[in-house]
Amino acid sequence: MDFTFDARTADLHEKLTDFMQEEVYPAEPRFEDEMAALDNPWARPPVIEALKASARDRGLWNLFLPDDRFGAGLTNLQYAPLAEITGRSPHLAPEALNCAAPDTGNMEVLSAFGSPEQQDRWLKPLLEGQIRSAFCMTEPDVASSDATNIATRIERDGDGYVVNGRKWWSSGAMNPNCTIFIVMGKSDPGAERHRQQSMILVPRDTPGVTVKRGMHVFGYTDASHGGHAEVEFTDVRVPADHLIAEEGSGFAIAQARLGPGRIHHCMRLIGAAERALQLMCERVSERVAFGRPLAEQGVVRDWIAESRVRIEQARLLVLKTAWLMDTVGNKGAHTEIQAIKIAVPQMAEWVIDKAIQAHGAAGVSQDTPLAALWASARTLRLADGPDEVHRASLAKRELRKYS
Amino acid sequence: MDFTFDARTADLHEKLTDFMQEEVYPAEPRFEDEMAALDNPWARPPVIEALKASARDRGLWNLFLPDDRFGAGLTNLQYAPLAEITGRSPHLAPEALNCAAPDTGNMEVLSAFGSPEQQDRWLKPLLEGQIRSAFCMTEPDVASSDATNIATRIERDGDGYVVNGRKWWSSGAMNPNCTIFIVMGKSDPGAERHRQQSMILVPRDTPGVTVKRGMHVFGYTDASHGGHAEVEFTDVRVPADHLIAEEGSGFAIAQARLGPGRIHHCMRLIGAAERALQLMCERVSERVAFGRPLAEQGVVRDWIAESRVRIEQARLLVLKTAWLMDTVGNKGAHTEIQAIKIAVPQMAEWVIDKAIQAHGAAGVSQDTPLAALWASARTLRLADGPDEVHRASLAKRELRKYS
Amino acid sequence: MDFTFDARTADLHEKLTDFMQEEVYPAEPRFEDEMAALDNPWARPPVIEALKASARDRGLWNLFLPDDRFGAGLTNLQYAPLAEITGRSPHLAPEALNCAAPDTGNMEVLSAFGSPEQQDRWLKPLLEGQIRSAFCMTEPDVASSDATNIATRIERDGDGYVVNGRKWWSSGAMNPNCTIFIVMGKSDPGAERHRQQSMILVPRDTPGVTVKRGMHVFGYTDASHGGHAEVEFTDVRVPADHLIAEEGSGFAIAQARLGPGRIHHCMRLIGAAERALQLMCERVSERVAFGRPLAEQGVVRDWIAESRVRIEQARLLVLKTAWLMDTVGNKGAHTEIQAIKIAVPQMAEWVIDKAIQAHGAAGVSQDTPLAALWASARTLRLADGPDEVHRASLAKRELRKYS
Amino acid sequence: MDFTFDARTADLHEKLTDFMQEEVYPAEPRFEDEMAALDNPWARPPVIEALKASARDRGLWNLFLPDDRFGAGLTNLQYAPLAEITGRSPHLAPEALNCAAPDTGNMEVLSAFGSPEQQDRWLKPLLEGQIRSAFCMTEPDVASSDATNIATRIERDGDGYVVNGRKWWSSGAMNPNCTIFIVMGKSDPGAERHRQQSMILVPRDTPGVTVKRGMHVFGYTDASHGGHAEVEFTDVRVPADHLIAEEGSGFAIAQARLGPGRIHHCMRLIGAAERALQLMCERVSERVAFGRPLAEQGVVRDWIAESRVRIEQARLLVLKTAWLMDTVGNKGAHTEIQAIKIAVPQMAEWVIDKAIQAHGAAGVSQDTPLAALWASARTLRLADGPDEVHRASLAKRELRKYS
Repeated sequence: MDFTFDARTADLHEKLTDFMQEEVYPAEPRFEDEMAALDNPWARPPVIEALKASARDRGLWNLFLPDDRFGAGLTNLQYAPLAEITGRSPHLAPEALNCAAPDTGNMEVLSAFGSPEQQDRWLKPLLEGQIRSAFCMTEPDVASSDATNIATRIERDGDGYVVNGRKWWSSGAMNPNCTIFIVMGKSDPGAERHRQQSMILVPRDTPGVTVKRGMHVFGYTDASHGGHAEVEFTDVRVPADHLIAEEGSGFAIAQARLGPGRIHHCMRLIGAAERALQLMCERVSERVAFGRPLAEQGVVRDWIAESRVRIEQARLLVLKTAWLMDTVGNKGAHTEIQAIKIAVPQMAEWVIDKAIQAHGAAGVSQDTPLAALWASARTLRLADGPDEVHRASLAKRELRKYS
Repeated sequence: MDFTFDARTADLHEKLTDFMQEEVYPAEPRFEDEMAALDNPWARPPVIEALKASARDRGLWNLFLPDDRFGAGLTNLQYAPLAEITGRSPHLAPEALNCAAPDTGNMEVLSAFGSPEQQDRWLKPLLEGQIRSAFCMTEPDVASSDATNIATRIERDGDGYVVNGRKWWSSGAMNPNCTIFIVMGKSDPGAERHRQQSMILVPRDTPGVTVKRGMHVFGYTDASHGGHAEVEFTDVRVPADHLIAEEGSGFAIAQARLGPGRIHHCMRLIGAAERALQLMCERVSERVAFGRPLAEQGVVRDWIAESRVRIEQARLLVLKTAWLMDTVGNKGAHTEIQAIKIAVPQMAEWVIDKAIQAHGAAGVSQDTPLAALWASARTLRLADGPDEVHRASLAKRELRKYS
Repeated sequence: MDFTFDARTADLHEKLTDFMQEEVYPAEPRFEDEMAALDNPWARPPVIEALKASARDRGLWNLFLPDDRFGAGLTNLQYAPLAEITGRSPHLAPEALNCAAPDTGNMEVLSAFGSPEQQDRWLKPLLEGQIRSAFCMTEPDVASSDATNIATRIERDGDGYVVNGRKWWSSGAMNPNCTIFIVMGKSDPGAERHRQQSMILVPRDTPGVTVKRGMHVFGYTDASHGGHAEVEFTDVRVPADHLIAEEGSGFAIAQARLGPGRIHHCMRLIGAAERALQLMCERVSERVAFGRPLAEQGVVRDWIAESRVRIEQARLLVLKTAWLMDTVGNKGAHTEIQAIKIAVPQMAEWVIDKAIQAHGAAGVSQDTPLAALWASARTLRLADGPDEVHRASLAKRELRKYS
Repeated sequence: MDFTFDARTADLHEKLTDFMQEEVYPAEPRFEDEMAALDNPWARPPVIEALKASARDRGLWNLFLPDDRFGAGLTNLQYAPLAEITGRSPHLAPEALNCAAPDTGNMEVLSAFGSPEQQDRWLKPLLEGQIRSAFCMTEPDVASSDATNIATRIERDGDGYVVNGRKWWSSGAMNPNCTIFIVMGKSDPGAERHRQQSMILVPRDTPGVTVKRGMHVFGYTDASHGGHAEVEFTDVRVPADHLIAEEGSGFAIAQARLGPGRIHHCMRLIGAAERALQLMCERVSERVAFGRPLAEQGVVRDWIAESRVRIEQARLLVLKTAWLMDTVGNKGAHTEIQAIKIAVPQMAEWVIDKAIQAHGAAGVSQDTPLAALWASARTLRLADGPDEVHRASLAKRELRKYS
């Protein structure tokens, strides 16, 4: 057992930390100003392209992608501490490194399951950061944590497929640069539970695709992430070669996509919690009430200590999960993947809540990143299946050990 | 000891419940549509005036005001259950009844401390629901929970006063109908701690008043409450008769204003929690996952039971506090007023969080009122002094009992 | 609505408070010394009889019993604040007033359902404090929160009944003065669910009754309460007139017994929490660490404030529950009775835990009453049905409101 | 980074697991029976010696001691997973392996700081498991978490030292085999804060030593650990060569002793939590209520999942702490040592509490090990300094990072 970073991770860690200090944090106010000045609330401001160019120059590009034909070829364990750092500035850093959800998961799907033609047409520009993509899975009318509930249909018709259905929380789809959707639907409702689903590529400009509105998260539109769209698919016809892999493989692809996705989300949240702890420490060191800095109040110190204790534990669990995924595979790491999905958002929510409280009213406002960080942590208790589904499933596996 | 409503309360309770069912809940979607259609995001949509007219017809007007020269003449204990009901639809009901913060507190101040001229010029149109008002107390640069920190100056100069300072979280001030500000500042920084402050009336259109921006609350602008403005006062001159009561009475007026304000906030939050519990129960009864309604899941039932248990306890504490204020005065009810300020927002936050979770992603979105209700509960852990200040003060009093 | 004690309650409250100050608290160390000196760990020390005599002289006797033919004739609402006070010294005060469980419940059963002969033979000496009794309900082999699980048999055989079964947690039965057991068993397993059970009086010295051992509670034997016995009934024959009421009425009697029992338990726990809060305040005012009294530490103040806030809420809910039982009956108060059963033990556990922490290692030891108070609060999350059963049941009722 | 055990750890882990299965768990009921049959409640039953002999045969002896002149020579990281396993049966396994507190800490002190004569006279028989020892640090009259408060005096007088003072919570001292005490006291109250203290060896039979009573932990005497004694030292004279190291080194020795002690305590608690989780899973799989096994109840599953999630995180933090101690030393691992002291007892308390609840009344009784495990977890929130001291200290260090 050993808790040291390997040389490549240490090197990238240092480079990325420098990039954050030198460019990303200073770009945060510029980003806000540019966003405020845009005509289209969903457009991306120029600062983003500048950051992307710099990150690429610094060798901090596509770090997320384990397949070294296409990306950095890092293991999950190597990438995890880097993803954490990007979570400290989640509106800028992941996109700057071309490591933003949902593109990361979509690129993984295309690199692992896409045909050469699909890779050429969509993976390539995604890897170059020229286009964005969306993943259309969740549906408003059913409990989507149960994949057998999915109502969207993908039906073979001649030399193509016809897609009908309604999705929401299709993250990124409000972004005008988002040109390709991966859509999950049922191609064979009569098949075995986990062979009913397929995934298909639907270009955004295909007739019948309607991006209806952006969902809010608390009061946020998440424009900086391309929003979360409600999308209607009405008799949307795409050529047969837009299907990913083969009919019936949708569930398996979704599962393959989820493991790394959860690791990335969780690592970024740890970065968000670290940022919140730092802001809290800085604030309470400066702010004076009733004649002394807040930092001298016992309750505030208690928050700081408890934050440190919770962050450390959560980080180690994510790292171990990454290591398990690398060594025994996603399936062998199933319990741990669920465990971090349960543990990390609630940890981050707690830490950020305390940082908010330490900031007084500024904490809930636009004057700190805290309220937005909190909202994204809270939302991850629901995204990719609510906590309760993961808890029930993890418990079942635990019970089997002793019976 | 007796837990029954008196006849007047019971009668108003029934009338108000009818009004909610017949007009307020149905107006919620209309309100959203009208807000979306407005040119000015801060303007008030027509539905509000319709509700106000109806509430007035039904005898549900100015219920909050204990002074029967001006208002309904209810005790705190009589008004509390009514305020609770308005909290079920906090964007519409309080304003419909002319019982919305911060006007309620401002009207109390004017009715108790205002000169006949001040009452005539500002209290009257406020009581009629013709204008709105703001209360400018909190400042961005100091911990305002400690009133001696206030930096805004109110200085005598000839036949007037000159106000200089910067305020934020001046709720209601973004509303174009908001025409009068009550401003807290220091008139004599050399006086005894609690005689340094004064309050003064500043018409919004006085030269030197700049409403700079609206503060956000978890992404919300709270436009329906008139927002929370940052306001600058630069050499703002008002006639001397705009001072409320006398120089040095600002702290005492603020204290008198706070007690009822907290009761009202807390009662509305209890209504918000009840609404959330109702929405949770309805949702889980309808929603099916893994083959059965969510309502059959043990964890969901646990949330429901715990919500009921917490709401009941909090409500009783608020009612007892109202009774104490009526019988022994705000000062005698000091411990209980602080206790509800501590207890109720955290209760409401907890219940609403569970309702959100039960709704899945819809819970954090604009498709239910839950996320906005949560944000306002969370914010009340900071408004009127953060929890920690009240906890420390309550504990000191408790410790004195035993030493 | 009114939160004042009526005259009778106020008078008894004052008398009881005086008795506690003048006799009960001073008797606590004497009790410990006398217990240590006894040969039989289960015997009752002489100080108890002295306290009983004095309480009777002071008019503080059988206050619990609402039936004024036999007891004080107080309503639940009148008795509740008195029971609270006895909970401040739970090893001495309830017994001193002849208001100790399980005798209180047993006396209620006998006064309401007993035959004149049963009342004469057992209720009378119980009311005089001459004998003690036990209630034999819980069984080791089944989840007794579900009454249909009860396995003990009560079978008619000629002019008597024969009892067979195994009980545990028969509180009081280790006390040598405990001479009569009320035993719950099935007389007709084939009847409708809630008509299968009967209750029967079994004198302790009946052949076939074996008191096997005392159960421990976190290491405590609870000798001062007569322990919690495991009891075997092997072909125990009693005359037919020992049956209480009629065959098949056991479940109904148990339900009637439970409501007041829960109120009493909860009120005593509130007294226990108040005692813990007082001890905490006293301790932290005296104890110095790192150069200042613990009372000046923010975290300690936070505990004190939160304790006060939680106690006040819980007390009000119990009082309202008592009022409901008096005005609409146990059935109408069902939700509230379950609510206090859920809320009060967890509140008391929390407060006492903090008081323990404030005492350092002394808090877990025999040098303060805190650890024992904690153990009894913890146990009440299990006694009379675990929290989870009450939560599930309360939630079901809540869900019905909205469907 | 790598999460695999090295070969030696893996080998010992397997051997120890076998020993637990084959001998320790089966010995638990025998231990209870033998304890019950003893005349002296503090004596050790024969089963212990049998287990010790077997553990020694199996090569599972003195594993705790990193100094390979005297013990197994394992690193903290190697020993940690083994200590965890012993925590599953804390009354038997640690002593069976000669790895029980407080002897472990005392043996470390003697091996690192003892003179050859001290090692010969006391370390040797301790290593052989022939005698036991106590560590006399905590005092009843002062907050001992602040070492400068210590009131016991160690005064040079001719060719010896004279010890005066009162200690309590001297764990192990009630055991008749406990023949040597290490006593902390002040030798020079005028010296610099951390040079005032010395440690000295006091044989139990020295005149003036009075073992007054055993302290209770909740209702437990902890006889199986040799209890926790209150000890008076009245003019106790020992030869000068009984002083450990040199005058003024007491604080430094105490600090050196604490790091590994905390690791050991924490690892054993993780084992205790694992045992509780196992018992909970087994219980709920068997127990039926309302027609189905408890294991099918959502709330119970939630406990199980949450337990697993908490245990995993806590274990990783302890392992990393052990690794840090091995690689950068106790001082470099200061934050992490405090972090596990804060995190692990509260985790264990939570998990064991849920296991208790799942067992119903059996859970608080002597029929499962759960209540005793809980009491020891709870006590560790106080032992070696209350949580609050560690939290405040950890927070101070955290704050320094950002200022």
